[in-house]
Amino acid sequence: MTRIAVINPNMSVGFTEKVGLQARRIVAPGTEVMALNPQFGPASIEGYYDEAFASVGLLAAMRGLEADGASGGKVSGYVVACFDDTGVDAARCLTKAPVMGLCEAALRFAAIVASRFAIVTPMAVSVRPLEHLVSKYGASSQCVVRAAGVRTLDFEGENADMAYLALKISAENCLAEDGAEAIVLGCAGMTDIADRLRAELGVPVIDGVSAAVKLIEAMGMLGLQTSKAGAYASPPVKTYDGIFAAFAPVA
Amino acid sequence: MTRIAVINPNMSVGFTEKVGLQARRIVAPGTEVMALNPQFGPASIEGYYDEAFASVGLLAAMRGLEADGASGGKVSGYVVACFDDTGVDAARCLTKAPVMGLCEAALRFAAIVASRFAIVTPMAVSVRPLEHLVSKYGASSQCVVRAAGVRTLDFEGENADMAYLALKISAENCLAEDGAEAIVLGCAGMTDIADRLRAELGVPVIDGVSAAVKLIEAMGMLGLQTSKAGAYASPPVKTYDGIFAAFAPVA
Amino acid sequence: MTRIAVINPNMSVGFTEKVGLQARRIVAPGTEVMALNPQFGPASIEGYYDEAFASVGLLAAMRGLEADGASGGKVSGYVVACFDDTGVDAARCLTKAPVMGLCEAALRFAAIVASRFAIVTPMAVSVRPLEHLVSKYGASSQCVVRAAGVRTLDFEGENADMAYLALKISAENCLAEDGAEAIVLGCAGMTDIADRLRAELGVPVIDGVSAAVKLIEAMGMLGLQTSKAGAYASPPVKTYDGIFAAFAPVA
Amino acid sequence: MTRIAVINPNMSVGFTEKVGLQARRIVAPGTEVMALNPQFGPASIEGYYDEAFASVGLLAAMRGLEADGASGGKVSGYVVACFDDTGVDAARCLTKAPVMGLCEAALRFAAIVASRFAIVTPMAVSVRPLEHLVSKYGASSQCVVRAAGVRTLDFEGENADMAYLALKISAENCLAEDGAEAIVLGCAGMTDIADRLRAELGVPVIDGVSAAVKLIEAMGMLGLQTSKAGAYASPPVKTYDGIFAAFAPVA
Amino acid sequence: MTRIAVINPNMSVGFTEKVGLQARRIVAPGTEVMALNPQFGPASIEGYYDEAFASVGLLAAMRGLEADGASGGKVSGYVVACFDDTGVDAARCLTKAPVMGLCEAALRFAAIVASRFAIVTPMAVSVRPLEHLVSKYGASSQCVVRAAGVRTLDFEGENADMAYLALKISAENCLAEDGAEAIVLGCAGMTDIADRLRAELGVPVIDGVSAAVKLIEAMGMLGLQTSKAGAYASPPVKTYDGIFAAFAPVA
Amino acid sequence: MTRIAVINPNMSVGFTEKVGLQARRIVAPGTEVMALNPQFGPASIEGYYDEAFASVGLLAAMRGLEADGASGGKVSGYVVACFDDTGVDAARCLTKAPVMGLCEAALRFAAIVASRFAIVTPMAVSVRPLEHLVSKYGASSQCVVRAAGVRTLDFEGENADMAYLALKISAENCLAEDGAEAIVLGCAGMTDIADRLRAELGVPVIDGVSAAVKLIEAMGMLGLQTSKAGAYASPPVKTYDGIFAAFAPVA
Repeated sequence: MTRIAVINPNMSVGFTEKVGLQARRIVAPGTEVMALNPQFGPASIEGYYDEAFASVGLLAAMRGLEADGASGGKVSGYVVACFDDTGVDAARCLTKAPVMGLCEAALRFAAIVASRFAIVTPMAVSVRPLEHLVSKYGASSQCVVRAAGVRTLDFEGENADMAYLALKISAENCLAEDGAEAIVLGCAGMTDIADRLRAELGVPVIDGVSAAVKLIEAMGMLGLQTSKAGAYASPPVKTYDGIFAAFAPVA
Repeated sequence: MTRIAVINPNMSVGFTEKVGLQARRIVAPGTEVMALNPQFGPASIEGYYDEAFASVGLLAAMRGLEADGASGGKVSGYVVACFDDTGVDAARCLTKAPVMGLCEAALRFAAIVASRFAIVTPMAVSVRPLEHLVSKYGASSQCVVRAAGVRTLDFEGENADMAYLALKISAENCLAEDGAEAIVLGCAGMTDIADRLRAELGVPVIDGVSAAVKLIEAMGMLGLQTSKAGAYASPPVKTYDGIFAAFAPVA
Repeated sequence: MTRIAVINPNMSVGFTEKVGLQARRIVAPGTEVMALNPQFGPASIEGYYDEAFASVGLLAAMRGLEADGASGGKVSGYVVACFDDTGVDAARCLTKAPVMGLCEAALRFAAIVASRFAIVTPMAVSVRPLEHLVSKYGASSQCVVRAAGVRTLDFEGENADMAYLALKISAENCLAEDGAEAIVLGCAGMTDIADRLRAELGVPVIDGVSAAVKLIEAMGMLGLQTSKAGAYASPPVKTYDGIFAAFAPVA
Repeated sequence: MTRIAVINPNMSVGFTEKVGLQARRIVAPGTEVMALNPQFGPASIEGYYDEAFASVGLLAAMRGLEADGASGGKVSGYVVACFDDTGVDAARCLTKAPVMGLCEAALRFAAIVASRFAIVTPMAVSVRPLEHLVSKYGASSQCVVRAAGVRTLDFEGENADMAYLALKISAENCLAEDGAEAIVLGCAGMTDIADRLRAELGVPVIDGVSAAVKLIEAMGMLGLQTSKAGAYASPPVKTYDGIFAAFAPVA
Repeated sequence: MTRIAVINPNMSVGFTEKVGLQARRIVAPGTEVMALNPQFGPASIEGYYDEAFASVGLLAAMRGLEADGASGGKVSGYVVACFDDTGVDAARCLTKAPVMGLCEAALRFAAIVASRFAIVTPMAVSVRPLEHLVSKYGASSQCVVRAAGVRTLDFEGENADMAYLALKISAENCLAEDGAEAIVLGCAGMTDIADRLRAELGVPVIDGVSAAVKLIEAMGMLGLQTSKAGAYASPPVKTYDGIFAAFAPVA
Repeated sequence: MTRIAVINPNMSVGFTEKVGLQARRIVAPGTEVMALNPQFGPASIEGYYDEAFASVGLLAAMRGLEADGASGGKVSGYVVACFDDTGVDAARCLTKAPVMGLCEAALRFAAIVASRFAIVTPMAVSVRPLEHLVSKYGASSQCVVRAAGVRTLDFEGENADMAYLALKISAENCLAEDGAEAIVLGCAGMTDIADRLRAELGVPVIDGVSAAVKLIEAMGMLGLQTSKAGAYASPPVKTYDGIFAAFAPVA
């Protein structure tokens, strides 16, 4: 049976529920979805500093799922439910199951339905890190990044309407000025507004949660696993000290 | 219901059956697969000249499926079952359904399970066109292309063992000399040897047919459609003359 | 004797005459120019779909000229008189004579007279395919592409004045906003307006027809031929079926 | 007074002492050097997994130095004494003082004394992450990465001679086969072998510790500080939970 | 003792004094600074033509300093005090001492304190040559170039206030429209306005003179020398004729 | 009448005669060829140092030809007959006539007849400067550079046979190991061996002298001139001092 772990690397239970809901809505009948977040870390991920801490929380959560005898059986694949692809490279070292971040997944889907597209993200501080991801994934010549000027957490709560409006205006500018033919939602917390935005803009709107979950489900069904022959090899055995002692790589 | 058309753009019925078989083996229970090939064109696709003719056959076949009243109902998505991604850009103009080639799909899956990988293709004449595709898809820094030195059709028939062996040696060289951590099969006709090669090499082996079918199935389930706002807009209405008269774009 | 075949890959006899006229105007005294178009295909080329059909028409026309006993003797070189460089790679496989598209030729001339330049093309749908060509030819860092917002055929007929004006405004924007120092005409059908635009803008205006014809004439005089050692090798012998049966590669 | 904090992000006190020694050996008379390592984390950094944990230890150590009333006064600049530039982007968000990793510093110095150079690193698992850094720093066209096939900690202890020899052979191959004109030592732990290798190879050998310390010293003397106007802005205030609660960004 | 030669490759004694003053202001106590300019050449460097002549003047001046018995002893390192990095590659062939241009130095410092930055240069004619340098140094994805629309020599004399204002406006546009987080001064003659501009803009302002001098001082202290194993090898012995006879390479 | 000045920027009269001979052999009947070299400068160009001096000699020679009343009338276009494209950018500033270097011309012709090719150059010291040119011209993905290990002047004199053999072996390695489909001769002094090498290797061999002369002849016939709107604008008026006083830009 295909069993997908969707890990929101920040501490927002609201986010975790939202992405879990979306994931369950789109998987095939036989696929089981676990949605969880780390037991420690930042309330949200906005820039490099938050990312560093969230990565460790993510890896800790994965170690629990990978451990022998973990409840529920072996995980077929992991989705890191953050658009910064926080900790994905490290996560790929930790498991044979395929691991996918939202940005990589969304860029792949966008490139199939559009020759040029735009990521719209909440805060300006994320623009450069996302551009670096876009470059890493080889999509610089077809993707621009714009910020809507709102906080990530604004999409959950009383400011949600205002946040949606700011996002929509930013997306419209991408279509009008950057030649974008499709919009990529640059934050896991926007997963529930994709349909509305698609209807209002009249172009494809790609939600990274949906894209990553379907990709990981597909890879799990095909039995594709992470290569251990290179950069994603299991970490060499060694000791870790202090509060990280329990996270040392083991054989 | 999800309904995938897998179109082999060459005239080899053996290829068409092989890719259809593989596609049906991996789709979810509710997904219908149609496997077909054009009614005219080259016996196989080996280089730019064959590609030009195969593209037209592909588009003609798609027009039949897109036509109002086509038997079986609307197609959710198309797989162009050729590793050269023959005609994919033109095909995206012809339909709102998502269209996927094998190379693009396989590269995306490879990048998830390996930081560096190699395409192994039958003939040397395909190396440069494939490198151009790799560049188009932004993967030049992590993917090399090698040729096994056999003909595409050798994978069907009495030379199949020899062809497999040549391919395996080429793949081993990629692992040993190019730093590849995974192997991508550079031809639709190899779809049935992926499992054997994976077992013998001990690294992930990505088959483009499987990758593209699962991606298109996923996109169909999510309702993602090709943007008509840019390069993939429907072709402007005009007349076509001579043997192509029937293929003119219509409103 | 140098003998150049200028093939307009669309069915517009007006275009064919226009480019033939320009070609004959600029070749050296001893050079013979043949201007022709295919016997089947689209009325104009606007985007990927038209390109696919036009490529086959082009190749069919070339086969006639390459055949033993073709009237007029051996062709020294081919110009594909379309700014999308439609079918050029396939055409290079079909003959030893050098083959040149308008875009490649124009970009080379532009780079000699300007450090930064712009392509102005009729329709927005061509922008992305042209950008992909610009990237293929290694000129992305010095060339932008803008669309004038008119149809290709508007340059022939009662809308010609309006089309010229739209083009000129677009070119002026490239000079003012993009830092362009020269303008490349992004359509074969504009070959007759280069002089006027150059006079009015005061910067070099490059017409792809002229550039390609002179380049191919030069290569013919030097005896340079297409390498058959790699990607442009003659297509392997095989059968083609149906309406394409006559176009199968032969030894 | 210029005051440099050299932070070895792994837990090896031997490494910390070694890099501190080298730093003190090369700074100007008035410059104070603090060499320290985190209070928790991995014994060494070999790949993405170790990096994730080491980054947090680094940031925690920096917070202590940045705190009001930290012993010794304000830090003028930080060197992250790891060749993977672990956590450097996050560290730049945490302080106004300039922050420098060894890889970035060494590549800059190498480019001044050689047109092409090579990084020699201990383990193969580091090759791809380092290549990604080389690309991030824009040096892909002039720098290759090779692994010597030894463990990082082998450079401290009874295997040190063997490790040196393996490294030297790897460096010689870079000179002979890759066209390298200079060698970059791809690990902080090699800082004490630069002189010997330079003497034996006859080409410049760049040690990242020395390069980064001198760069940061220079920037401190010039009063250059990290821009807070973009990607390195201070992290927005928010709560962190669990074992990371104390590391939450504050105003 | 560290002994730095700062060579202004143009004939402006005012420039030479200005950069010498700045260099002496920032070096460590034991470092000696020589500031000089060639004995022949252009009054300022504005574009490729001036550069060609200034390069020869630079090399002639260096030959004097490199000669056995040159007054003052061996030079530890050279700064070419021009933002076009005029003649730097040739200069590296002429000496074992490290040689540094202002542009390369400033870009390296900028990348440490900002993820994206802008060069502001006096004249539009310098924009493209500087962009080519930015590309050569691998910084194209993070650096834009803007011209203030003033002459280089305007920064010395009665127009200095106007020149400063034009520069500041240009810098502000880079911050507002290009996403720059720091400003690089694109001309040696601006070395004395860095502090004022930094104070008024509130972001890091990088002066190439300071950056290059500190880098070369650091390299001199570390004993790093230019590799003679490749592109910077000493020029092969041969004769030079005419007015250049005295500049022929000797063994 | 078309009047081409072919300037060999080194002092070898033998080279000048050789390239003049080749140029006259290939131009159209009405085209006049002037072959000349500077009145001062290096005997040959091997690396950056020689280039700097040769550039000034080239510009001085051009000034003579550009001067009002220069014997023979206006020059239609210039060929800089050196494969390093020495001084071409500066030369483009000095005249409205188009200016072409051998490397740029040869790369353009090579890309028409081959998808991948190689430059074979005499000395190793030229490899990196040529690679930088290849990158500047956007051909890095399809062109490699190899050195034959001989001196440039060896192609004229008693060592000519040995030099030819070394070059041929180097070219064969490019075909066998680098996937080259055509060979570019990386030195003006090889212009007379192109035919022999082509016959012996069986692939296209491109001689830069022929390519540049035909390109400049073509541009002269078309009346294309260098844009003065950007990087190639005429140099601003100013004084030059000392031995360069006579070369100052004038209005």
